[in-house]
Amino acid sequence: MQQLQQLIQEAQPFYKNGHVATYIPALSEVDPKLLAVSLIDGNGHIFQEGDTQQFFTLQSISKVISFIFVCATYGTEHVLQYVDVEPTGDPFNSIIRLESHQPGKPFNPMINAGAITISSMLPGGTVDEKVHNLQSFIAKMVGVHCEVSDEVFTSEWETAYRNRAIAYYLKANGYLQGDVEVALEAYLKQCALLVDVQQLATIALVIANDGYHPLTKEQLFDAKIAKMAKALMLTCGMYNASGKFAAFVGLPAKSGVSGGILCLAMDAQIEELQGTIGIGIFGPAIDEVGNSVAGMKFLEQLSRQYQLSIF
Amino acid sequence: MQQLQQLIQEAQPFYKNGHVATYIPALSEVDPKLLAVSLIDGNGHIFQEGDTQQFFTLQSISKVISFIFVCATYGTEHVLQYVDVEPTGDPFNSIIRLESHQPGKPFNPMINAGAITISSMLPGGTVDEKVHNLQSFIAKMVGVHCEVSDEVFTSEWETAYRNRAIAYYLKANGYLQGDVEVALEAYLKQCALLVDVQQLATIALVIANDGYHPLTKEQLFDAKIAKMAKALMLTCGMYNASGKFAAFVGLPAKSGVSGGILCLAMDAQIEELQGTIGIGIFGPAIDEVGNSVAGMKFLEQLSRQYQLSIF
Amino acid sequence: MQQLQQLIQEAQPFYKNGHVATYIPALSEVDPKLLAVSLIDGNGHIFQEGDTQQFFTLQSISKVISFIFVCATYGTEHVLQYVDVEPTGDPFNSIIRLESHQPGKPFNPMINAGAITISSMLPGGTVDEKVHNLQSFIAKMVGVHCEVSDEVFTSEWETAYRNRAIAYYLKANGYLQGDVEVALEAYLKQCALLVDVQQLATIALVIANDGYHPLTKEQLFDAKIAKMAKALMLTCGMYNASGKFAAFVGLPAKSGVSGGILCLAMDAQIEELQGTIGIGIFGPAIDEVGNSVAGMKFLEQLSRQYQLSIF
Amino acid sequence: MQQLQQLIQEAQPFYKNGHVATYIPALSEVDPKLLAVSLIDGNGHIFQEGDTQQFFTLQSISKVISFIFVCATYGTEHVLQYVDVEPTGDPFNSIIRLESHQPGKPFNPMINAGAITISSMLPGGTVDEKVHNLQSFIAKMVGVHCEVSDEVFTSEWETAYRNRAIAYYLKANGYLQGDVEVALEAYLKQCALLVDVQQLATIALVIANDGYHPLTKEQLFDAKIAKMAKALMLTCGMYNASGKFAAFVGLPAKSGVSGGILCLAMDAQIEELQGTIGIGIFGPAIDEVGNSVAGMKFLEQLSRQYQLSIF
Repeated sequence: MQQLQQLIQEAQPFYKNGHVATYIPALSEVDPKLLAVSLIDGNGHIFQEGDTQQFFTLQSISKVISFIFVCATYGTEHVLQYVDVEPTGDPFNSIIRLESHQPGKPFNPMINAGAITISSMLPGGTVDEKVHNLQSFIAKMVGVHCEVSDEVFTSEWETAYRNRAIAYYLKANGYLQGDVEVALEAYLKQCALLVDVQQLATIALVIANDGYHPLTKEQLFDAKIAKMAKALMLTCGMYNASGKFAAFVGLPAKSGVSGGILCLAMDAQIEELQGTIGIGIFGPAIDEVGNSVAGMKFLEQLSRQYQLSIF
Repeated sequence: MQQLQQLIQEAQPFYKNGHVATYIPALSEVDPKLLAVSLIDGNGHIFQEGDTQQFFTLQSISKVISFIFVCATYGTEHVLQYVDVEPTGDPFNSIIRLESHQPGKPFNPMINAGAITISSMLPGGTVDEKVHNLQSFIAKMVGVHCEVSDEVFTSEWETAYRNRAIAYYLKANGYLQGDVEVALEAYLKQCALLVDVQQLATIALVIANDGYHPLTKEQLFDAKIAKMAKALMLTCGMYNASGKFAAFVGLPAKSGVSGGILCLAMDAQIEELQGTIGIGIFGPAIDEVGNSVAGMKFLEQLSRQYQLSIF
Repeated sequence: MQQLQQLIQEAQPFYKNGHVATYIPALSEVDPKLLAVSLIDGNGHIFQEGDTQQFFTLQSISKVISFIFVCATYGTEHVLQYVDVEPTGDPFNSIIRLESHQPGKPFNPMINAGAITISSMLPGGTVDEKVHNLQSFIAKMVGVHCEVSDEVFTSEWETAYRNRAIAYYLKANGYLQGDVEVALEAYLKQCALLVDVQQLATIALVIANDGYHPLTKEQLFDAKIAKMAKALMLTCGMYNASGKFAAFVGLPAKSGVSGGILCLAMDAQIEELQGTIGIGIFGPAIDEVGNSVAGMKFLEQLSRQYQLSIF
Repeated sequence: MQQLQQLIQEAQPFYKNGHVATYIPALSEVDPKLLAVSLIDGNGHIFQEGDTQQFFTLQSISKVISFIFVCATYGTEHVLQYVDVEPTGDPFNSIIRLESHQPGKPFNPMINAGAITISSMLPGGTVDEKVHNLQSFIAKMVGVHCEVSDEVFTSEWETAYRNRAIAYYLKANGYLQGDVEVALEAYLKQCALLVDVQQLATIALVIANDGYHPLTKEQLFDAKIAKMAKALMLTCGMYNASGKFAAFVGLPAKSGVSGGILCLAMDAQIEELQGTIGIGIFGPAIDEVGNSVAGMKFLEQLSRQYQLSIF
């Protein structure tokens, strides 16, 4: 695995081109130099390197998972009535597109408007039930219930004015289901779920495998939903750099402002790893659009070296 | 090839859910019932069915080809200074996004703003030179110089007010190169290039093969450019239905309002056809976003039956 | 006063071109045929006609009054840091303009975004204090504390999703002062203040008189503030018909969806009434932009007959 | 007239807060220190001071005049089918509002979109006829045919990309009448008409007098049109500062980027001048929204000193 280690060593210094997210104290205190990578294939082969003990919050990466869970619960047809799956070049927290495109249906579940709508549909009548059900869904993939970081949740909750504006806007237009504050709290708690890179890689592996968990031998969700999630990740998973990531890396991925990236490859061969491969990355220094700088660099080189692009 | 024939027969009646484009007389007079399909693989195996003698204009399909040609001429780095490659859920002829996102750089070459900018960069000082050079580039793929339909060009030229508005807007912001009227005329002439489904399938095959023409054994353009073109087709090739097409069909494709669709599959096996496969479709009845209804239906079933989705 | 009575009789049947506001039960149950008019001049001469006993809620008319009160309390320079005074052709509850014009400063206090910002600045630490202080300010003009309609407030409060979205958006951008829910409740309570046409006419008279109350002989606020209020009423007081109202009627006015209109004339002579004249109107059938149809008709004819246009 | 002279002297140094327009060579070469003022009343009393010999181009001031002329020719009802009269806080050359408000009808004749539409309606089949007819209409007010500055017209024409974009957009949506290039050339020629401050003051005087020329004793256009023009000037005559100008100065006015301002007062008394007064100003250093800095300062002080605000 010498080559992989070298790719990581080469990518790590690029953290200097980014900064840790500063709008939450909990995120701003992280060491920007950190870089952790985990790769796992369908046979359970694992490659790990760097600060893999580090836990970090899912943030926007949770959007893919809650979308899959809600689709698995209610069926994609029902879900698509409330959220479209069209990409958009807008910032993740834009309101303007909601209003200019009647009647306010969120473009896709990867932007905040769509993700909050999805969170409002999480099964369960209370915030606790919704979050618990999502934790249980994730546990089927990673084996344990991920915890919510109270520190991160609390600081986001207190300044969530813009997300609250989006949520009430969605309610006014009939897309957000149930109580607005419940949806918003569930959303911010799912964003504050703590994972490590191996857990991230395992979730990616299940999605890559079309919902089938190769280690537990269970089909956790429908292949159709997995393919939809992969398409969404490719078209709008990397914020406003999604198009360039598709063009130059060519892998389905979803990033979060905590510096995490969930990525996956299909039909790949990366040293001993083969077939579908889940990738989890943590590199907290992010660029101006919100993606881990060192993480992006690593994926770019990895895709090139092992010809992983799906195109 | 009985199965393929059956898929076509099943898809054809869906033309009833669409209408031929009416804004150009030449397009509006076409029989909406028509459906022609051509598939070709790297060994030269061809499957054809339906009204394959019919010629039709490229329209927006030309946007992929001119983008590839301009990138092959000047390098992708140069081209990306003038056009971004980020998808957007906006209608193809929207101006609003240009103005709201400073400084007016077109989001991607698949919307009119981006495509007109690309046409302004076609090598050649005059309209004739630009069009001739593009025809020569296409000829390397299909063997002949495709003709410009004077009838279609003339009627588009006379009513091209909105495209002209976009073009002058791009000029005002420094993205359109050279003379505006030259760029616009070149753009509308490239849209009016006449092809049949087999030519379309052949162009698709070369893109699928990363720029290598398996029949002439020539590398016509760089693999990196081909991958960028495929990513663009997947993220924004099917107008405002691109995201849904990626989710439910999962193939790089580009459609035009004439009812043509250029599509491609990689690592596929469709009856006798194998490996990279180019697909050309003509079904002139289009839906409200601009895609051939019967053509979309055929691709949806084809992808499902032969598991072609790249996801 | 036979002529005035005739103008009212001629205007009343135009109620048929409108409808009572339906989004609040309390408003939707009002008889659309009602029309009440009150005119009062600086000598205390009063003309009244129609259903003048009817009370109705101020709704958007309250925006002028709270703006004047907040300016009188903190000075116009301070207030203009939080709200601009530029007109805009947008619907009163638009969010889009907030986002597209950095950094989200409301265009003027007559649209909801500006009015909610102003309500957040009402003196007082609690909702009750804020509303009480506004009531006291109004009482200096009309002699009594106007009551809040609990019925109207309650039904608006429960469905105020869009206003809440606007309020949190303003908070996110630093314009809304203090607690969002306090500001919103104060805003909706000021909208639910009950008045009759004579009280409306009296308020209008004080504004017309540049803040001087000709009956109590008190200067209630600065002439500079009154002139600013009149300018705002003329440029953006009649929702999306403000420009046409300025062109064809030419009087400062502010309307509410309850069907009320506060209007004023300066240097006028209307039968026995002379000089500055305050006008209060109630005609609950409103047109699609939100103005009382019969009320507008009456003002149009009144302005023409007595040459009241300020232009 | 010592007081007026003093006001001018006090306003002149404020030119330092502005800059001459730089996008046209002809404008950029003017001395920013210049300040010329002319006031004229209905009895022909004239006050003039400063560089009154200086000629300058009308630029946006021409928008009021062409609007009046087209209304006088075809009637306001006809004209209002093509252009609305609602104010908007947008920059004068914005396209975004055209597209977001279906179906693209210009908000008012004071923004470029509305003004170009009005120019397309100027009577006459050719550019020369249109311009000649407008010159003749102006000649009825000022006594002579104003000349077109070829230098200014030529430099604007060569770089009129943004106006051309607006014009073709209007054509695409059916608002612009006749040939686009003819309308645009007529528009830019009307903007390049040369006047001095006394001519400007005389035009203002006729508008102030509701279309009646007090010196030639002719009714040049209907009072209703004049009132509409005054309302437009007040609500949207001073670009994005129109609301503040209405609030703090309170006079109908129209400015141009050449540094000219046409302004008018009614029922005024300014030293020997009485009744309706026309004001012409030239101060070429403009602020960031496009208004003459020294000219605005002078009008602000003039309005305050002589209590000219219509509010």
